[in-house]
Amino acid sequence: MAKTMRAAVVRQFGAPLVMEEVAVPTPQLGEVLVKVMACGLCHTDLHAIDGVQPALPLIPGHEVAGVVEAIGPGVSGLREGDPVGVAWLHDACGVCEYCVGGWETLCERQHNTGYNVNGGFAEYVIASARYVARLPERPNYAELAPILCAGVTTYKGIKETDTKPGDWIVISGIGGLGHLAVQYAKAMGLHVVALDVSRDKLELARSLGAELALEAQAPDTAEAIARETGGGAHGVLVTAVSRPAFAQALKLVRRKGTISLVGLPPGEFPTPIFDVVLNRITIRGSIVGTRLDMSEALQFVNEGKVSATIERAQLETVNEMLAELKAGRVNGRVVFDLLR
Amino acid sequence: MAKTMRAAVVRQFGAPLVMEEVAVPTPQLGEVLVKVMACGLCHTDLHAIDGVQPALPLIPGHEVAGVVEAIGPGVSGLREGDPVGVAWLHDACGVCEYCVGGWETLCERQHNTGYNVNGGFAEYVIASARYVARLPERPNYAELAPILCAGVTTYKGIKETDTKPGDWIVISGIGGLGHLAVQYAKAMGLHVVALDVSRDKLELARSLGAELALEAQAPDTAEAIARETGGGAHGVLVTAVSRPAFAQALKLVRRKGTISLVGLPPGEFPTPIFDVVLNRITIRGSIVGTRLDMSEALQFVNEGKVSATIERAQLETVNEMLAELKAGRVNGRVVFDLLR
Amino acid sequence: MAKTMRAAVVRQFGAPLVMEEVAVPTPQLGEVLVKVMACGLCHTDLHAIDGVQPALPLIPGHEVAGVVEAIGPGVSGLREGDPVGVAWLHDACGVCEYCVGGWETLCERQHNTGYNVNGGFAEYVIASARYVARLPERPNYAELAPILCAGVTTYKGIKETDTKPGDWIVISGIGGLGHLAVQYAKAMGLHVVALDVSRDKLELARSLGAELALEAQAPDTAEAIARETGGGAHGVLVTAVSRPAFAQALKLVRRKGTISLVGLPPGEFPTPIFDVVLNRITIRGSIVGTRLDMSEALQFVNEGKVSATIERAQLETVNEMLAELKAGRVNGRVVFDLLR
Amino acid sequence: MAKTMRAAVVRQFGAPLVMEEVAVPTPQLGEVLVKVMACGLCHTDLHAIDGVQPALPLIPGHEVAGVVEAIGPGVSGLREGDPVGVAWLHDACGVCEYCVGGWETLCERQHNTGYNVNGGFAEYVIASARYVARLPERPNYAELAPILCAGVTTYKGIKETDTKPGDWIVISGIGGLGHLAVQYAKAMGLHVVALDVSRDKLELARSLGAELALEAQAPDTAEAIARETGGGAHGVLVTAVSRPAFAQALKLVRRKGTISLVGLPPGEFPTPIFDVVLNRITIRGSIVGTRLDMSEALQFVNEGKVSATIERAQLETVNEMLAELKAGRVNGRVVFDLLR
Repeated sequence: MAKTMRAAVVRQFGAPLVMEEVAVPTPQLGEVLVKVMACGLCHTDLHAIDGVQPALPLIPGHEVAGVVEAIGPGVSGLREGDPVGVAWLHDACGVCEYCVGGWETLCERQHNTGYNVNGGFAEYVIASARYVARLPERPNYAELAPILCAGVTTYKGIKETDTKPGDWIVISGIGGLGHLAVQYAKAMGLHVVALDVSRDKLELARSLGAELALEAQAPDTAEAIARETGGGAHGVLVTAVSRPAFAQALKLVRRKGTISLVGLPPGEFPTPIFDVVLNRITIRGSIVGTRLDMSEALQFVNEGKVSATIERAQLETVNEMLAELKAGRVNGRVVFDLLR
Repeated sequence: MAKTMRAAVVRQFGAPLVMEEVAVPTPQLGEVLVKVMACGLCHTDLHAIDGVQPALPLIPGHEVAGVVEAIGPGVSGLREGDPVGVAWLHDACGVCEYCVGGWETLCERQHNTGYNVNGGFAEYVIASARYVARLPERPNYAELAPILCAGVTTYKGIKETDTKPGDWIVISGIGGLGHLAVQYAKAMGLHVVALDVSRDKLELARSLGAELALEAQAPDTAEAIARETGGGAHGVLVTAVSRPAFAQALKLVRRKGTISLVGLPPGEFPTPIFDVVLNRITIRGSIVGTRLDMSEALQFVNEGKVSATIERAQLETVNEMLAELKAGRVNGRVVFDLLR
Repeated sequence: MAKTMRAAVVRQFGAPLVMEEVAVPTPQLGEVLVKVMACGLCHTDLHAIDGVQPALPLIPGHEVAGVVEAIGPGVSGLREGDPVGVAWLHDACGVCEYCVGGWETLCERQHNTGYNVNGGFAEYVIASARYVARLPERPNYAELAPILCAGVTTYKGIKETDTKPGDWIVISGIGGLGHLAVQYAKAMGLHVVALDVSRDKLELARSLGAELALEAQAPDTAEAIARETGGGAHGVLVTAVSRPAFAQALKLVRRKGTISLVGLPPGEFPTPIFDVVLNRITIRGSIVGTRLDMSEALQFVNEGKVSATIERAQLETVNEMLAELKAGRVNGRVVFDLLR
Repeated sequence: MAKTMRAAVVRQFGAPLVMEEVAVPTPQLGEVLVKVMACGLCHTDLHAIDGVQPALPLIPGHEVAGVVEAIGPGVSGLREGDPVGVAWLHDACGVCEYCVGGWETLCERQHNTGYNVNGGFAEYVIASARYVARLPERPNYAELAPILCAGVTTYKGIKETDTKPGDWIVISGIGGLGHLAVQYAKAMGLHVVALDVSRDKLELARSLGAELALEAQAPDTAEAIARETGGGAHGVLVTAVSRPAFAQALKLVRRKGTISLVGLPPGEFPTPIFDVVLNRITIRGSIVGTRLDMSEALQFVNEGKVSATIERAQLETVNEMLAELKAGRVNGRVVFDLLR
């Protein structure tokens, strides 16, 4: 096995990443070494790179699809060659009220891939054996990579709206997350209204099955939704990294509706008290998904019901791709294809 | 039966109510005439009096405890002399998705007592036979009156936090609603933190069973709650008619916690996106309660587990009492006692 | 309007129905007269005809699709000519804990169409205005009729399994109820295993989208289901009017699975205590559906996702059709088409 | 540390246990050695001793309260001297849908203390570090021991009835489990009907707060419950190891009620189809509880709301105590007190 590997490393917050040749790490107790086949690029990587919390140097990337290359001590249930995914939840404590209660994503002692442990913008990455996702045999790595974060996050976010088949959901923002959300919502029997400011993205949403695809900032959007859905949507999933999108969501739900927030723009949004109280609105944050959510999210892909629109790129272009993402010029999801 | 009755009437928005002698109304199809024994005074009466929506003249008051005096055509199941309550929900359509689905309080065609139909600041009030609450035999009318709105609203609001026995709940604001909320929470097996700015009200909360009673604006309140509850409360019920109380609630819940809003201050409160998303917080409005919630809320009173602290007043003092309420000088609940 | 109408009347329990010319009834307070366009034939009609409870004479039939012909006093929201459905739930009290809590189907004072009030085996039927189902404009009456009982019953029964999109459900029995259940389950994003003893019915299930269609009595059925579903189905809907089907269901669910029972064979089935306790199995009865369930069930039909397979018959053949039903020789649902 | 320890060992199925001096085991990867202070005696021990599944020799006992004596490799978060509990769930796989989804008690690869790994009828027992329960400082070991199985099992079983504060629950059987169930139910805000065949046990139930305590086999029991609860209990917890108790439960619930089964008598009970379907009854098995349930169950004890009635015994009397248990002559719970 190789002793060194290519990696895109954050050496200084806010500065461009540096392509380096670094040592391949060795899996410790309970860990495996995963050969990265593909790794998606996520908005949250921007937080890691811009220095919100973790220490340097750091290899970002938390949408890893790869294969097990080596197995550390104390690992059972995994073998070399197994196709696996490595996601934002590197590991969790396993014993707190959240871990035991089916909410490991809220564990206060979790580690996060590409954030406070090294991630997948490299040829190899260390994963915690109990926290890898199982991929199907001979997967399309590049197409599966976005499911590891964008996919599971939107799938879980939709579940958190407490909608049921036959209900209407608004997907606000049809980017890397939203274009997957439209597909999950349809596969879950929901009726979909897609909202975006870009005509291309609305066209994409229509082609993926959205019954309605509307210009988010048009003055009659809320009215149109109320009319077509018979009083407003039952749920809204806000994927747009935009504070106006958050405030708009409150105008789009019917009484007793739920707004699920998965985007992470900085700041606050104003919540109107009368509307929320008199209409019994629920506003709920949702953060990635557990291993069980992941397994379900992957199953929809395996069955051909959800498929990521990707732009393949070489890892060496990471800085250009980060610039494209910041500028909102990415259609679907950028995936670094390590097989190229 | 008398042909006229005393009533406190809104003749002009924002002006003092006028005590008048008006005609006793006659119950129509499906209606009953209720002799008012007692009627509580609620913050929402201020909205009616200050002219947010309804037409004039109007008799406010929606916390009525009384007895059936006369029965209109097409009514079954009620008899003259039955003790009944008349609440905010005068009636609802009975056939919409909310009425049929157990959420009649969200019916878009509901009428509201003392708001768009005449209410209980009078010797008699018309009620919809199917929407009255059944009171126990020989009730203490004045003590039951506040349950018809303040009681059921807080009881429902606590249910909406999705907490379970053994969990911690913060009751923010220990006024007419909050002092009942503390008692409901205790009867429901919860641990209670009471928050208020008044020492008297905190003392009242302690005497009603709150494990902690803290000065809302003290700098270490959030820390103290986190420490005593092992990471933050599972739920927060915001009864305070105050925007800062809404914003503060977000600092008091643990991950996966729920904030239930029942107060109705005008305006908006700023919701911090990172906190809500990363900690999976749920914010939910809650508005009064259905007839089923009402029946449950009354049952706790009948069993002696919940008891309203009231200040009895004569209806003729309505304008003085409204001034006291606005000034925050009421302890517990003002009830107009028509038997005096 | 006609003063008399054709009707199939039960004059004596267990005896053939008699075709008679009887008076067209007049709608009373809160009632409407519905002109019957089509009425489905349901297993429960056999209970009515064989005399389990009601008094005679009786006109059976509770899957009515028709139009409002005349309106009684005190009715609002309906007009002559409106297309409506009349279902098992003729009316309910509207004020009990079940009616107010979203479970009107459990009201202890309900009346049932074709059971203790006259039903739709006639040219006209009286309905309670608040309890009719709203049908789309210009409906296919005969095809909608079975939704009024068979459709809503299976739709509700599937909801009661607490399964979610992506889960596996077994539909046990592919008759009048089961062939609709397969379609509802698919529209709700579920994976379906169909079980029956008839090859024709299994073929029908496959054509309606069932992923698996298995011979119910084959020795390896439980094993095959465990293998294909990865440990057993998440839910089982038992529509078969057969006690062995009830007992078999317990072998088909995975741990934490739910069995929903909607069929009504007489008698008991043996429940093995160890299996139910150690595997945390839930067994739940489900009875028709509320008006809200009905509205949702009809919506799936309106969207073209569910469609009843029917055999049209003339009302005069009612006794022959009852014999066919008892003999299990009906494919899909028999509907009396009053337009023929 | 001692190299050998006293232990009660099953050498032959169905034969008396043998007191032996055996080697103190050494904790392996992820394990701790626990010094047993007290160990309760449970009905399930009879299954282990009578040879339902596991291999011999075996040390039974799965209600262990003790202290950590030694720590194996790879363990974090525990120190020597920590007071801990060891329960039926020795460990689970940690990665399956049940473990990740908050239902580790259904893991198909779990090990069970005193059943397929050695248990606490000995001076020391091996535990899996991640699966021990945390006990409070300086606990009363003997009084806590029964909570580790009987306590958590009934607490979870009550939760599984989906009842809420103010509802009525029937606790059927007031033995080792039932006398704790009465206390949990009261602490959870429920109204309690206790059922048993023994006057002493009914008296105990009354003293623990049961509103009603009724002779289980009296002819008017179901009627009395229906009358006092206004239509039947909302939930029934069947702890009695008796098939008639299972069948009786169906007569005690109101419409939409839930019966939770935690006892494990062999065999089946007959389920009447009409009652279950028409009344929408839910029957649900419940098996012990997760670590989260355990933590909650212990918290009620720490707060003084639940307290086990115990009979202390020396481990050497294990065969006599087993005979007493079989004969139904135990009041509350037998606990082997290793400190004596």
